[in-house]
Amino acid sequence: MNKAILFLALLCTFLLQAQSEDEKQIRAIYDAALTEAKAYDWLNHLSNQIGGRLSGSVQAQQAVEYTKEQLEDLGLDRVWLQPVMVPKWVRGTPEFAYIENKPGVTNNVPICALGGSVATPDGGLKAEVIEVQGIEELEAIGRDSIEGKIVFYNRPMDPTKISTFSAYSGCVDQRYSGAAEAGKYGAAGVIVRSMNLRLDDLPHTGSMSYGETPVEKRIPAAAISTNGAELLSTTLKLNPNIKFYFKQSCKQYPDVESYNVIGEIRGSEHPEEIMVVGGHLDSWDLGDGSHDDGAGCVQSMEVLHLFKKIGYKPKRTLRVVMFMNEENGLRGGNKYAQVAKSKNEQHVFALESDAGGFTPRGFSFDTDEANFEQVQSWKPLFEPYMIHLFVKGGSGADIGPLKDEDLVLAGLRPDSQRYFDHHHAENDTFEHVNKRELELGAATMASLVYLVDKYGIIKSKKVKG
Amino acid sequence: MNKAILFLALLCTFLLQAQSEDEKQIRAIYDAALTEAKAYDWLNHLSNQIGGRLSGSVQAQQAVEYTKEQLEDLGLDRVWLQPVMVPKWVRGTPEFAYIENKPGVTNNVPICALGGSVATPDGGLKAEVIEVQGIEELEAIGRDSIEGKIVFYNRPMDPTKISTFSAYSGCVDQRYSGAAEAGKYGAAGVIVRSMNLRLDDLPHTGSMSYGETPVEKRIPAAAISTNGAELLSTTLKLNPNIKFYFKQSCKQYPDVESYNVIGEIRGSEHPEEIMVVGGHLDSWDLGDGSHDDGAGCVQSMEVLHLFKKIGYKPKRTLRVVMFMNEENGLRGGNKYAQVAKSKNEQHVFALESDAGGFTPRGFSFDTDEANFEQVQSWKPLFEPYMIHLFVKGGSGADIGPLKDEDLVLAGLRPDSQRYFDHHHAENDTFEHVNKRELELGAATMASLVYLVDKYGIIKSKKVKG
Repeated sequence: MNKAILFLALLCTFLLQAQSEDEKQIRAIYDAALTEAKAYDWLNHLSNQIGGRLSGSVQAQQAVEYTKEQLEDLGLDRVWLQPVMVPKWVRGTPEFAYIENKPGVTNNVPICALGGSVATPDGGLKAEVIEVQGIEELEAIGRDSIEGKIVFYNRPMDPTKISTFSAYSGCVDQRYSGAAEAGKYGAAGVIVRSMNLRLDDLPHTGSMSYGETPVEKRIPAAAISTNGAELLSTTLKLNPNIKFYFKQSCKQYPDVESYNVIGEIRGSEHPEEIMVVGGHLDSWDLGDGSHDDGAGCVQSMEVLHLFKKIGYKPKRTLRVVMFMNEENGLRGGNKYAQVAKSKNEQHVFALESDAGGFTPRGFSFDTDEANFEQVQSWKPLFEPYMIHLFVKGGSGADIGPLKDEDLVLAGLRPDSQRYFDHHHAENDTFEHVNKRELELGAATMASLVYLVDKYGIIKSKKVKG
Repeated sequence: MNKAILFLALLCTFLLQAQSEDEKQIRAIYDAALTEAKAYDWLNHLSNQIGGRLSGSVQAQQAVEYTKEQLEDLGLDRVWLQPVMVPKWVRGTPEFAYIENKPGVTNNVPICALGGSVATPDGGLKAEVIEVQGIEELEAIGRDSIEGKIVFYNRPMDPTKISTFSAYSGCVDQRYSGAAEAGKYGAAGVIVRSMNLRLDDLPHTGSMSYGETPVEKRIPAAAISTNGAELLSTTLKLNPNIKFYFKQSCKQYPDVESYNVIGEIRGSEHPEEIMVVGGHLDSWDLGDGSHDDGAGCVQSMEVLHLFKKIGYKPKRTLRVVMFMNEENGLRGGNKYAQVAKSKNEQHVFALESDAGGFTPRGFSFDTDEANFEQVQSWKPLFEPYMIHLFVKGGSGADIGPLKDEDLVLAGLRPDSQRYFDHHHAENDTFEHVNKRELELGAATMASLVYLVDKYGIIKSKKVKG
């Protein structure tokens, strides 16, 4: 009896100390992030000295070189570039569009080519417009009413979704597949309402795909600002026979070589177990890619910097990966997973930040029940930092290809309300990232990585580390 | 046994239905807020058509008239103005300041008079500077080293506090009492580092008090931008004998009459029980007062609008109160409580929004354990809306004077990271308020009011309603 009580007392003491050790380390991580972080300065350079970094561009190469240098300055155990062939799509001269109410009476509207689109003919494209709320309407409308016209996809994001990412998911098929689908009915081009919950004058680009459409049947696709979409829709209601004109000179070039940028701290006890933190280094060309995904890159680099600052040496190998080409190809993510597999590397954890540099709210996890329970048990440690969200769901596009039975995938979940105001548009710029919010995100990531490193993941087939 | 099971089954059915009714109503509130709210348009008018609304100003009067009209348009049961005498302090011509490295070699720095300060002499004030980290240093430094000098309070907000309001609380004594305290040691004036976590060029004003200092002994007080404070501090380290010059022409006028703006929906079952939602209508003069506290006013008005929109008739009387003079006197809050007491009104609940129009995170409550437990039991209803924070703490300055045993006080707690970037400065403007974030705040308030109305509060002495 006395022995049992003694044992319990010792166990309690041990558990309390363990708890308090974790609390202390996490406090140290947040303190360092809010006073000594480099993330904001790194982002300033990426955004203001380099700018938009579309795959295959000079800026993308500059970003590769800059982040590699910065990782080297951190004194990591190893920093390297992983070659990957990426698509090269170039916007060309600024796009131009107008609504023609009648010959000579026009209203200019802001548009931008969707990433991957073909150009219009040199003189532009002018045609009547047929407005739809989605791809599924095309069949009912039929080829006779679509042929030769511009299909105008105008389904807005649903404002009642609390997560704006859900609203985005409910619309983005128009942008991604709208041209391929409309092309099947003989459309001459497509105009897509920007994926933006706000009414403003900025067109939002983003990737699109022609699927199996043969090259000669591909039709040009552009995004129109939300205000432009409202004007076009209203104008069509008054007169369905108005015409729309747009001109764009974008072009797809042959693939070019680029790189994933990788740095690592070798694990002190289980170097063979690899934890990845990452974001994507490429960005759309209209803004400077501060939120998408400069923020995720510098936060990921910051995780390693914070560990150095607080003197925490991970037991497992910690890698930061700046993936290339998330936006229009995911070549970097695929290449990283392919190399990892070919080398038989044992990845146990991967965390991506690719939802903006806003106040962190928590994480979503793509994992089994046992590991989800373990991360849930860490929630109280995050409470003092206003981190409440531990949910099942997606992680990040770039780390998705790593998916495996014994790998916990996670995504940082920042506040999403402002994200699509800036996403893929010319106002995704540095001044819209708040320094503290960015740093809190990095600290939140580092704290989760610290816990995963300390306690390991629960493995289904292999021995626990 | 069978009867017991039947009873349990019925109880479960009842509880599930009750839950599902609440879920339905709260969903309806959020849907209406995100699609039909007026808050953003109201704020646009307050901010862009009226602007900064310091007590006693023409703009404050315009805000009284505008919000009264808008409440009347909502078709409430009663809308009225409650007269209250308020202080009238006027900034005068723009302030001017420089650091004089040596005669003829100067650096201009951005300052603004603190609210309530006296003017400098007409020609300005020039003196040597003594930098301190807080009021408590004055005694050790002593009169000999302070007399005739400008005391420069330079203790920054603590960046490691997760809630920026905690960081603010840790500094604001310098602004509020710095002049009164330095005056006791013969200081000629005081310069206070702006209450801002960011390094920038904007001075942040705010209220200060001379306490018991006789009129003839009052010394002028101004805030300096954080960059200005850094420059001044660095300059002093290089040469402690540099001088600082500043000039301001602010003035306190006799009190003038103003108003609290009040509207109410009369309760259908317990009209004698009053629930208040509110914010303060006055704001500082440098910006347009969008976050502080235009947002809180329009969110409070929105609560009543949302109830109308979803067709919910409160059982208890619901009042919106736009308090006058929170910023430099709290006269409106005091007057409202005084009138309520003199009329023996039975206030059961008061909720203030005065922490910015950012993404809502939850509430803090000033109440007893029984009621705190009740509101905690509602947490699951708020989970789908990413509202996690239900803590004990302060509520709001304006509703504080109502404090009573049988009254639950609450404050909306939005994300605080960006708040002090804008607080009391010229960049507290409309474009920094996000429409969705504002609307989510209003919906969150309305949902809590709905639950309080439906379930009542737990009373310590009176019969439960």
